[in-house]
Amino acid sequence: TKHKIAVIAGDGIGQEVIPEGLRAVDAAAKKFGIEIEYTHFDWAHCGYYAEHGKMMPDDWFDQLKGFEAIFFGAVGWPATVPDHVSLRGSLLKFRRDFDLYVNLRPVRLMPGVPCPLAGRKPGDIDFYVVRENTEGEYSSIGGRMYEGTDREIVIQESVFTRHGVDRILKFAYDLAQSRPKKHLTSATKSNGIAITMPYWDERVEAMGKQYGDVKTDKYHIDILTAHFVLNPQRFDVVVAPNLFGDILSDLGPACAGTIGIAPSANLNPDRKLPSLFEPVHGSAPDIAGKNIANPVATIWSGAMMLDFLGNGNPKYKQAHDAILAAIEKVLVEGPKTPDLGGSGDTTSVGKAIAAAI
Amino acid sequence: TKHKIAVIAGDGIGQEVIPEGLRAVDAAAKKFGIEIEYTHFDWAHCGYYAEHGKMMPDDWFDQLKGFEAIFFGAVGWPATVPDHVSLRGSLLKFRRDFDLYVNLRPVRLMPGVPCPLAGRKPGDIDFYVVRENTEGEYSSIGGRMYEGTDREIVIQESVFTRHGVDRILKFAYDLAQSRPKKHLTSATKSNGIAITMPYWDERVEAMGKQYGDVKTDKYHIDILTAHFVLNPQRFDVVVAPNLFGDILSDLGPACAGTIGIAPSANLNPDRKLPSLFEPVHGSAPDIAGKNIANPVATIWSGAMMLDFLGNGNPKYKQAHDAILAAIEKVLVEGPKTPDLGGSGDTTSVGKAIAAAI
Ligand SMILES: CC(C)[C@H](C(=O)O)[C@@H](O)C(=O)O
Ligand SMILES: CC(C)[C@H](C(=O)O)[C@@H](O)C(=O)O
Repeated sequence: TKHKIAVIAGDGIGQEVIPEGLRAVDAAAKKFGIEIEYTHFDWAHCGYYAEHGKMMPDDWFDQLKGFEAIFFGAVGWPATVPDHVSLRGSLLKFRRDFDLYVNLRPVRLMPGVPCPLAGRKPGDIDFYVVRENTEGEYSSIGGRMYEGTDREIVIQESVFTRHGVDRILKFAYDLAQSRPKKHLTSATKSNGIAITMPYWDERVEAMGKQYGDVKTDKYHIDILTAHFVLNPQRFDVVVAPNLFGDILSDLGPACAGTIGIAPSANLNPDRKLPSLFEPVHGSAPDIAGKNIANPVATIWSGAMMLDFLGNGNPKYKQAHDAILAAIEKVLVEGPKTPDLGGSGDTTSVGKAIAAAI
Repeated sequence: TKHKIAVIAGDGIGQEVIPEGLRAVDAAAKKFGIEIEYTHFDWAHCGYYAEHGKMMPDDWFDQLKGFEAIFFGAVGWPATVPDHVSLRGSLLKFRRDFDLYVNLRPVRLMPGVPCPLAGRKPGDIDFYVVRENTEGEYSSIGGRMYEGTDREIVIQESVFTRHGVDRILKFAYDLAQSRPKKHLTSATKSNGIAITMPYWDERVEAMGKQYGDVKTDKYHIDILTAHFVLNPQRFDVVVAPNLFGDILSDLGPACAGTIGIAPSANLNPDRKLPSLFEPVHGSAPDIAGKNIANPVATIWSGAMMLDFLGNGNPKYKQAHDAILAAIEKVLVEGPKTPDLGGSGDTTSVGKAIAAAI
């Protein structure tokens, strides 16, 4: 059986890193006898918006819903389309409409990557951020009143549902339980955000009762960001509402050296709709078109995609591990992109990783 | 004229650090001929709640409104009172009802403080977080529906007003304009939080037009936290909505070594109601009662209070600077509390700083 993958490169460096991601996935697939069929889509980017006044065709859902996964670059070109228009019209729609409720983001200090934290070495930073990906602070409810006057008021509602909270907590607890440390940290802000966040805490407590072997703790998001810098070795699985997960999954990789290598999996664990795999970084207009973007985040996301496609099949796990090993090798031996202090380019790093696989 | 100051030590280490703050303020006041009269209030702590079922007496506003400033320790004792109850019933009430719309938080790498970031030295990290302190995500509007069932929904509204946004931006721009670098960074998340945050961006743009000599940039909060770790030297004045300001003002001090020394001023610049000065850290139940809490944050907050009381009078500025110089001296020479790797205690550090003044 051939796996059907939709490929959307998007804007900016998305166009440059996606080919390298495919190169690595292909190399690993070939090695382990995995068959993949790609379909490329030339929408969900700001050029399309300029022509059509929308980010995607009206039947985008139907065009994509039959794929097993979407391999996604990045969206955003604020010089021509405001970010909230381009993102709400593409990536955020995928997350919401395909119900990709898990955003899984590994944070790992890799060999060969200079760490901004003094005295940390590979092994010291190795955890997952499990981000709720469909509700919370990223809501579409709200609006303006007294627009354009001194009395102007703008309101946006954060929405937490039992359904939405419990399923992400269950995913995070299952993950924590499968790991040697069995340790779950919940990101909250119940001392200040006094309506939704105490609810989050309650659900964590309720879910935790079903996982007696998992150690649970919770931190308010302000002090949690401090501990990411001061005590990153403390974390194993960090579960967070949408906005806090967004923050922690940029901060974590920064503490581990660079967001240029951080991957993510936007998962619908039910597998009835496509899951989406993308780098954590954005379209980076400042370096777009120069072939200097770090392709590692996208390549690593490709590895996560293979693992997901396998759904427990060891062959796919091996393909994932082979990509990770190749990434580690090239991070140590080079070539490296400028964000890691190297003088390699996107293509040469991508080719080196594919060769190492 | 005697300055009338209300003193509220609160919970946990608040009780231990406030006396050291007063010791330093007294030493500086004496040296520069400043007269202060303190009134101590034994409420706004969780022990009071246990007795009275509320954090403060009903006439708290009238009792406090005549003071020039409140010198505040910390509130919170989650073992007996949930944080959202204790904080909403005290600190957050002060901020809201005294309209303390500026939360001003210096972030500075001080000599003698070990920095978790590799290769950073004093001078590399020296900026202000200007946090909106009365609205935004910290709202009292919202609630639950279908409570206790699988259909449970919890909603909380973020509220941004033109009045609230413009006044904090004006304060931040004025501050940026007064500093050599004249550089303002706005914390936003307009790509994801697509109703309120684009409004914030619009108001930043509008206000920026009135400050042609100030360089403005903006970062989404996720990547901004990454830059705090990777490029802290980049910042001068960082203005942020309430929640992001809360996060950045813990993360910034962590990058500069410890939140144990981070001070804050909750200001009502109109001076018709009392402003409030407090450490950024909380009541720290885990180390309370041991006399090992770092008193520097509170002492530095006391220095900010003196500066505020002076309202431009150079004598008060000198008193502020004398406290800062004493803090720097003791951070270098010791004694130090355990959070800075020392074996001194709260009292000995406080006494050393007072002596150095
Ligand atoms: C205690 C808490 C409610 C408070 C806040 O979130 O504002 C604290 O973290 C702060 O930064 O002053
Ligand atoms: C681009 C933006 C809307 C997005 C988010 O906030 O989720 C991004 O930061 C991410 O982390 O995937």
